[in-house]
Parts: sequence; C-alpha cells; structure tokens
Amino acid sequence: MNFTILWFVLLFCGLALAQDDGGTCSPDTCNLLRDFGSRSEKLGAMETRLEDCESQILELRNNERTKVIFSAVATAGDKAIGPFDEDTTLIYNKVFTNIGNAYNPSTGIFAAPVAGVYYFSIYYHAGGHHEGKLFLYKNGQLMIMTHDHKSDSDTADNGGNAVFLQLQQGEQVYVQLAANCHVWGSDLHTTFNGFLVTLM
Amino acid sequence: MNFTILWFVLLFCGLALAQDDGGTCSPDTCNLLRDFGSRSEKLGAMETRLEDCESQILELRNNERTKVIFSAVATAGDKAIGPFDEDTTLIYNKVFTNIGNAYNPSTGIFAAPVAGVYYFSIYYHAGGHHEGKLFLYKNGQLMIMTHDHKSDSDTADNGGNAVFLQLQQGEQVYVQLAANCHVWGSDLHTTFNGFLVTLM
Amino acid sequence: MNFTILWFVLLFCGLALAQDDGGTCSPDTCNLLRDFGSRSEKLGAMETRLEDCESQILELRNNERTKVIFSAVATAGDKAIGPFDEDTTLIYNKVFTNIGNAYNPSTGIFAAPVAGVYYFSIYYHAGGHHEGKLFLYKNGQLMIMTHDHKSDSDTADNGGNAVFLQLQQGEQVYVQLAANCHVWGSDLHTTFNGFLVTLM
Repeated sequence: MNFTILWFVLLFCGLALAQDDGGTCSPDTCNLLRDFGSRSEKLGAMETRLEDCESQILELRNNERTKVIFSAVATAGDKAIGPFDEDTTLIYNKVFTNIGNAYNPSTGIFAAPVAGVYYFSIYYHAGGHHEGKLFLYKNGQLMIMTHDHKSDSDTADNGGNAVFLQLQQGEQVYVQLAANCHVWGSDLHTTFNGFLVTLM
Repeated sequence: MNFTILWFVLLFCGLALAQDDGGTCSPDTCNLLRDFGSRSEKLGAMETRLEDCESQILELRNNERTKVIFSAVATAGDKAIGPFDEDTTLIYNKVFTNIGNAYNPSTGIFAAPVAGVYYFSIYYHAGGHHEGKLFLYKNGQLMIMTHDHKSDSDTADNGGNAVFLQLQQGEQVYVQLAANCHVWGSDLHTTFNGFLVTLM
Repeated sequence: MNFTILWFVLLFCGLALAQDDGGTCSPDTCNLLRDFGSRSEKLGAMETRLEDCESQILELRNNERTKVIFSAVATAGDKAIGPFDEDTTLIYNKVFTNIGNAYNPSTGIFAAPVAGVYYFSIYYHAGGHHEGKLFLYKNGQLMIMTHDHKSDSDTADNGGNAVFLQLQQGEQVYVQLAANCHVWGSDLHTTFNGFLVTLM
C-alpha cells in the first residue's frame, strides 16, 4: 500500500517538476541560457565597433583642431621698405592673425607645423620711382612673384599673387624683396597671408 | 503510517529538486547569474560611451554645417562709382554667392554670424583720372587698404588686398571708397569676397 | 485515506516547488528572466544607435576626404602669351598643386568633381604695349575679369580678381585671354588658383 502511494507521489512530483520553471515563469532555463550566450557574443562585438567609432571620432576632432592661419603686413611707419643692395627677406612685422603661430613676425618666415596643403597670397603697393618686386619662396626655391617696372609717369604700382603649395612638416615659405626694389611700408598695404587648407 | 509515507515523499522530492536546473541543462544557475551581472555592468558602461560618441558626432556635424561664404561685385552699369565728397561704404550690390546670408548687398556690410576666423579679399579696377582707394574696416577700425595714384598718362589702375581676421559673433566688416576717389562699376571688376575659415 | 496522504503530498511539493530556484540560489529565476528581457531590449536599441554613429562617421570622413585644390601658372618661356585674334582659353600649363586632378593643364579647364562652393583667384602681369585682359568663365558665362589699358608710358601692368562660385558636379571654370591682349608668360607671374571650400 505504501508503494501504491509512492507511485502517486512519483507521478505527481514528476509532473510538477516537468513544468517546474515553465510553470513558475516562461521561457524555460535552456532557452534562457542559449539566448544569454548569443547576447554575450553580440555585446563583445558591439564593444569592438564602439571602440572603432571612438578612435575615428578622435581623429576627426584632431584634424578639426589643427588650425594654421596668418595675416601680417610689412610696416616701416608710412615710408618705403628698400631698396636694398641684395634680395632681402621681407619681414611682415605687424600681425593681424597668427592662429597656430606658424608665422614668425621677427624673421618673416612661415614654417609648416604639419604636413598639408597651404594657401599663400601676397599683395604690395609701391611708389613708381623704383621697381617693386617680390618673390615667394618655398625652402629656397622660387615659386611665384609679382612685380612692376620703374616709371616716372606712373607714380605708384600695385601687385599681388597667390598659390596653393603642398608642404611637409617644417618646410618654410617666405617672401623676398628683390635687390634695388622697394615696397610701400604703411601698416595697411603690403600683406602676406596664408592658411592650412587641408592636412595631407 | 502517514508519517512514514511523508518521509518518503520528503526524500523523493528533495532529491528531485536538488538536481532540478542542473539536471535540465548546465551550466548551473549560479554561474549564469554571476555572468549576467557582469554583462549588465558592461552594457551600462557601453551605453555611456555610446552617448559620448553621439554628442561628439553632433558637434562635428554642426561645425561642418556652419558655412559662411560670399562674393559680390560693385556695379553701376559700366561707369565709375564715385568720386564722393567723403568716405562712403561701397555697396557691392550684385551677389555671386552668399551662403549663410552674412553679407548684406543693400548695405555692403558683412556681419559675422558666428565667432571664427574669416578671410576677406578685395579687388578693384579704376580709371586713371581720379585716385582709386579702398579701405577695409572691422567695426570702424581700418585693417587694410589698396589704392593707386591719379595719373593722366596711365589711364587705368588695378589693386587688391586680402586679410584673415578673427571676428566675434556680430562683428562687422565692410569696405569704404575714400573721398574724391572712384572705382570702376562694371559688374565684373570690383569685388568683395569672404568666407569662414574656422570656428573659434 | 490515500487521498488524505495525496493532499499532504500536494501541499508539500507545492511549497517545495514554489521556493525551487530560490532555494538553489537567489535572486529567483523570474526576476532573472525579467531583467534579462529588459537587457536584451537595451542591447538591441544600442546596436541601432551604434549603426547610426557608424554611418554618420563614414559621412564625415568622406566629406573630409573630398579635396579639390589647384594652382597653375601660364608659362611661355619668359615671353608674352598673345595677342591672339580672338578670345582664347588661357592654358596654365605648369602645375604647382592639383589635388583631385580637377584642373586640366592641357586644356586650362577646371571641372568640378563634386557639387560645392569653390574659390577661384587669378593674377596676371603684362607689358604695357598691349592691353592685358582676362575673363573668368563658368560654363560659358562670364563671371569676373581683370584688365588694364595699353600704355606707352607705363611699361607694365598687374591685375587680379577672385570669386566664390557654387558649382554643380561637372560644371567648368576657365580663363580666357581677350582678343588682341597679352599676359606675361614667365613661370612665376600669371596664375590660376582654386579650391573646394565646402560640399553643397
């Protein structure tokens, strides 16, 4: 008789256990474990992708932060600069803007702080009784120039030029006033300007 | 006798329960719970990093979207503009480009919509029988100029200049034609150009 | 009597099952499952946000990678270019920079590789015994020009101009030397420069 009862118990408990978790809440533990495994893999994969996003954003922000912009004028208190006996680096000594401090107003020399493509423009005003002539150099190599002739009838001249140059870090760009030439040294006319267009 | 049976039941159910989850599938619930806790922490940390990415991308996109670019020419139907008795703001009334509408072709005044470094360039053509002289101002302060002398023998002159200026939001840049001077008012020669190089 | 016992069994097993997992380790499976479900939803939502970040970063990087910059000079071995009987496209045949190869030094024509706003500047030097006159065209439409008069007394002239133009992909910009005019063909003076300021 005990045994009959035990069989009832066995039957009952068996049924009860079979629907155990399922009975308490679904889905059952097996699916839970399977799902949990796949979620863990996905989490790992997403973290890798997130790290990639973070590094790309950092690069974009660094590129954006790299700013090189300058404008300066060669001033000698409203009189001519030159003529000199030889070609002379023109010192644009009054600075309007010098973001990144790549232009040196004591030497007149711009040095590229980073490799990239830069824009440079020069403008001058000069009296007519001497030639006006400016050379823009990249590391001692003549790139562009602007000049006008001596003229007794035409008492003043203007000139300008511009160029985009690809520079390596440290390469220098500067302007020379040709021998026996002059430019007007007000603090408004004879300018040297440049900026970093893009990193390369 | 009831009690004897109850002890059997106790024993049976105890064993059955002991191997419950473990019996159904491995690993056991304890490890599952431990892993689950650590995964949950990682998920929270990743969400914080993701939010940081999103805000940085938004900032990069806003910077990229901020565009200020204009080009305009001063036209009077192929005749000279000026001379006037006093310095007069030159109205570059025909617009080539005005992205951001920061330049006002009715007043000739550019107003910086955002703080940043801007590039400005001016060019003019003029007959020789009057002086040509243009001043570029930032908020009433003279920045740069370009001019040439009156000349009977040289019947025409050209001039130009450019500068990078750091402006606060709302600061104004404009060009004035000097008193008793003129520039040529075709719709092709005498231009005023500028663009936002970088936010600051 | 069997039934009495079965009710005991029912009662006992009911209690035992109720505290099932809870008995093995806490918190119980129900909370685990609830938490797990919410974590899974969060994981899905985060993956969507991550994909959005990735696509925006890709767009930002593509914009950054789109670089169009050129500088070239019209050279004829230190003698004049022109005069010609008709307006002639000036071929700036020596290239300083040509990032993106949008400028063709064989034809003198720049073709926009992408829609955007571009900056163009031109500068020239010329002897005085002919007129110097350059036209900058966008798709056959005259945009800006620079010129100076013939002059026997003033033996040389300089001129320049610049403009920002919004171009669709494929639109062309080029410079024409006016009929019966000339410019100086050194490899240093007469330049044509441009760059992509922004995609549009």
